[in-house]
Amino acid sequence: MRAGLSLADLPLVDAHCHPVFVGPGEARGSLSRAEFERMLGEADRPAPLGVSYADSLLGAAVRRWCAPPLGLPAGTPLDTYLDRRAEVGPAEAARRLLGAAGLSYLLVDTGIGGTDGPGSDWWSVRGLASAADAVGREVVRLESVAEGLADSGVAAGDFADAYVDALATATQNAVAVKSILGYRHGFDVDPRRPSRAEVTVAARDWLLTRRRDAEAELDVGSSARLRDEVLLRFVLWSGLDRGLPVQLHTGFGDRELRLTSVNPALLQPFVEAAEPVGTPLVLLHCYPYHREAGWLAAVYPHVYVDFGLTVGQVGARAGAVLAEFCELAPFGKLMFSTDAYRLPERYLVGAAQFRHSFGRLLREWWRDGDLTARDAERVAAMVGGDNARRLYAIDG
Amino acid sequence: MRAGLSLADLPLVDAHCHPVFVGPGEARGSLSRAEFERMLGEADRPAPLGVSYADSLLGAAVRRWCAPPLGLPAGTPLDTYLDRRAEVGPAEAARRLLGAAGLSYLLVDTGIGGTDGPGSDWWSVRGLASAADAVGREVVRLESVAEGLADSGVAAGDFADAYVDALATATQNAVAVKSILGYRHGFDVDPRRPSRAEVTVAARDWLLTRRRDAEAELDVGSSARLRDEVLLRFVLWSGLDRGLPVQLHTGFGDRELRLTSVNPALLQPFVEAAEPVGTPLVLLHCYPYHREAGWLAAVYPHVYVDFGLTVGQVGARAGAVLAEFCELAPFGKLMFSTDAYRLPERYLVGAAQFRHSFGRLLREWWRDGDLTARDAERVAAMVGGDNARRLYAIDG
Amino acid sequence: MRAGLSLADLPLVDAHCHPVFVGPGEARGSLSRAEFERMLGEADRPAPLGVSYADSLLGAAVRRWCAPPLGLPAGTPLDTYLDRRAEVGPAEAARRLLGAAGLSYLLVDTGIGGTDGPGSDWWSVRGLASAADAVGREVVRLESVAEGLADSGVAAGDFADAYVDALATATQNAVAVKSILGYRHGFDVDPRRPSRAEVTVAARDWLLTRRRDAEAELDVGSSARLRDEVLLRFVLWSGLDRGLPVQLHTGFGDRELRLTSVNPALLQPFVEAAEPVGTPLVLLHCYPYHREAGWLAAVYPHVYVDFGLTVGQVGARAGAVLAEFCELAPFGKLMFSTDAYRLPERYLVGAAQFRHSFGRLLREWWRDGDLTARDAERVAAMVGGDNARRLYAIDG
Repeated sequence: MRAGLSLADLPLVDAHCHPVFVGPGEARGSLSRAEFERMLGEADRPAPLGVSYADSLLGAAVRRWCAPPLGLPAGTPLDTYLDRRAEVGPAEAARRLLGAAGLSYLLVDTGIGGTDGPGSDWWSVRGLASAADAVGREVVRLESVAEGLADSGVAAGDFADAYVDALATATQNAVAVKSILGYRHGFDVDPRRPSRAEVTVAARDWLLTRRRDAEAELDVGSSARLRDEVLLRFVLWSGLDRGLPVQLHTGFGDRELRLTSVNPALLQPFVEAAEPVGTPLVLLHCYPYHREAGWLAAVYPHVYVDFGLTVGQVGARAGAVLAEFCELAPFGKLMFSTDAYRLPERYLVGAAQFRHSFGRLLREWWRDGDLTARDAERVAAMVGGDNARRLYAIDG
Repeated sequence: MRAGLSLADLPLVDAHCHPVFVGPGEARGSLSRAEFERMLGEADRPAPLGVSYADSLLGAAVRRWCAPPLGLPAGTPLDTYLDRRAEVGPAEAARRLLGAAGLSYLLVDTGIGGTDGPGSDWWSVRGLASAADAVGREVVRLESVAEGLADSGVAAGDFADAYVDALATATQNAVAVKSILGYRHGFDVDPRRPSRAEVTVAARDWLLTRRRDAEAELDVGSSARLRDEVLLRFVLWSGLDRGLPVQLHTGFGDRELRLTSVNPALLQPFVEAAEPVGTPLVLLHCYPYHREAGWLAAVYPHVYVDFGLTVGQVGARAGAVLAEFCELAPFGKLMFSTDAYRLPERYLVGAAQFRHSFGRLLREWWRDGDLTARDAERVAAMVGGDNARRLYAIDG
Repeated sequence: MRAGLSLADLPLVDAHCHPVFVGPGEARGSLSRAEFERMLGEADRPAPLGVSYADSLLGAAVRRWCAPPLGLPAGTPLDTYLDRRAEVGPAEAARRLLGAAGLSYLLVDTGIGGTDGPGSDWWSVRGLASAADAVGREVVRLESVAEGLADSGVAAGDFADAYVDALATATQNAVAVKSILGYRHGFDVDPRRPSRAEVTVAARDWLLTRRRDAEAELDVGSSARLRDEVLLRFVLWSGLDRGLPVQLHTGFGDRELRLTSVNPALLQPFVEAAEPVGTPLVLLHCYPYHREAGWLAAVYPHVYVDFGLTVGQVGARAGAVLAEFCELAPFGKLMFSTDAYRLPERYLVGAAQFRHSFGRLLREWWRDGDLTARDAERVAAMVGGDNARRLYAIDG
């Protein structure tokens, strides 16, 4: 971290990401600009007339960081970039972009996207690891295990025990579990562990509704998903009992969440109730409530913070936002990840923007006398990977 | 936007402002320092002993940007400035300040302040346009139309239909409507369109209370104003039906609002309920919840964000706050306005501070490689006017 | 404030601090690193394995500002620093650190920590003043007076009158009172002054519970403390009646508070109810809700803002956070303090970081044309001490 030094060659641990899509576009050719734009941000709907989602700090970051690995100058117009991407082909583009990201580990939440396998258009834990020349490890989504159990025809009275078993099996090789309570309900929940009787009653209702909707051939999109408050708490507490670090979606994401319900400060009663268990809690993303998250990490020993989605999405503003994350949280509790999904561009944008912006921030603090050079070097290594390696025991 | 280039000559669209006062002060002479200070910020009460509202970033911005058009150096002490302003006279001062703002369009919310006309101390749509050498267009305040209708003696059973007719008439030449739900109630409302029966019942109560208070010669300040939750929703939904963009006051303002109730994120249920109608929603001001507003604009196609009051009020901090607005929102959804009212200084401060601070921000992003020069030029034009021209169809 | 000028020699008023501990560590020797770390931040628990609270912007600020007065270079590793601190001895270290802080007045909240006196390990108002070569004045904590009264065996029916008398006695030489409603309940309270009958009923319940718990030799930690909503409001309103400025804990602190309940914007109904009394309200700390606090100070004449704990805790980020405090609040309403407690390092970190960061911020605003040199000089003097001297009448 001396003058001229940087995070350019630091091997990063991507502590939270998802499978990548390497298949054709909807029209079976390469991704159209509209598809690409929709996959890029969190909108998932076409922009209104006259507006492009790529006209954003995120779009500018994609053109800055992703054009060079495809042999184009940084800042290339998006249409030119997409033409070259189509020429290169999605799999080769993904390999180049993932390769340029410089990741040593990828911790992959497999709860969305497809799976690895012959003929699959998705690369999950193994495919990503291979393309990135990194080690891939799995993060298991707590709600997905419950939904798989419901699909299997479990009886309501057996739900609680069967879930614990299913989670043990699903996490045999996992390094963490993940909760999307923020999406499915929001954080205004009873913080306590539900009783076995409560779980059975709630499971009965959910399983019954699911079966009725399926038999009536209704769109089961909503009842198939776990949204019941009691069951969401049950799977979260089961995750705590499992002992692996629990990653929690907090802060912004797509429109399926209520922004006012995902402020991590709302989790404070749960954080306190969970403390005696001893399992670490990792707050993901956090924005725009990242200062609240930093306070929780500063006062609760078992709370950690992962920048997640935030660094990649805000592009040029990553340094300013990262600085806010650092205001209260100890550096030993902060972690990088990309939260990348579907587009390989998101892995590289997350990693490259983090290297650039966090490196610049640390150099400024060193130059201004706030940190020593040795401090800055240590903090870069801690936040870029050492904290995650220790927390998830991935070198063990 | 090359090095040395700037937004200095960009013709701006002021997408939200109000009438300007060009009359004498309370003592029939020029404005006293106390009056000027009270009109400047959002306090509307005298400051306590030893405190001046002009000792603020806003006060410093006034002295920086408004002294030169009156022939004084930037930063001139406020008393000297006010002496010169009195010499020049309020109308001539207004002409010089408005002229220096470089506005090409003014979209004027006529719901507060006086009207144009011979002998009037106010310049509204026509007066402002003439003084600024710009095109003036009207923004109609939804609540004012309802209050006008109540004054006209409408029957409760006719209220709903009569309101739709009155709004159609009032907006014949308007480019947008404006809601002050944030002031009158806050955003913790039922998001749904109220039924006709609910409107009739609510109208009966409101009209009755108004009449009683007026007959009893009570101060009708409160009952004369529309504060009923059902009717506020009704006029908002009627505004959506009208099809013109709906501007919503969100975020800070004067003390008549509860700050915790005007976080635009609280509007998320309404934003979703309104989406099928297809009418654009423009979130004004937003501060200190502008990051929340940026997220709404990023995930809901019909949501836009207008900086409004914020840029002018925070003076030297405008660049930092504008940067936060840009973190998630697509550039095609962000708009400049002054939200100026009463004091001509506020038009110029809003415009000059925006040119200075947003220009500087874009140059930094260009210099640091975050945006290309072409990007920066396009973004300046979009945010400074093109987005508003497209959204409000004011070139049509 | 010309180029090269700074706040280095400005005599600061520390408008809110606490007693300092100069005794030995738990093992009767010098403070261990673990003890020092725990006293430094707000965690008050050991950090988890692999994490150090000193690896933070706060820890870096301590090593930057506190090493030189102990004869070590800025940025010295913490272990070396603690060795030197042990050599020097706690009392001499405290004298050097307090001396280097350059404080002219210390307003000491005596509600936590020990008292001055022969053999005491604490320096309170007199001890601090003597060590800092400054004037010390007392700030009386409203809840402590109530708890002292309860200890004295007051009857419930006499509680209200006796409290007013006790507060008058306790504040005879005080310059302010302090409320920790934020800690004891949060700001979702009825804003109104409780009736005498309500106070008597609430006092009866509280005194009874206290007595029972004491007789049963239960841990009276919780019932001994005043947590009753009615009584908390009563002591706050009694504080208003006393006429001295009322300091209110708002924003972050240790884990005893619920972060979502201490947003000062939640105090708006109380601020309005209190306005007719005319007593100034000082919002302490505020972070991460300091923009909300700035708005309150901008629109309510009787509201002031004190940076408190925030400046010291965020170290390198102090300038950025101070800039946010200044966005809306008039400079005549903003005040410096350290909120230092226990560790003498916290007085110096607060003062030195403020001088450094606020000075730099003002120089930037001057260099960029936002403020004149004269403005910057005045603002530094106002915020660093003049506002507090006027508000607390401490030169009177």
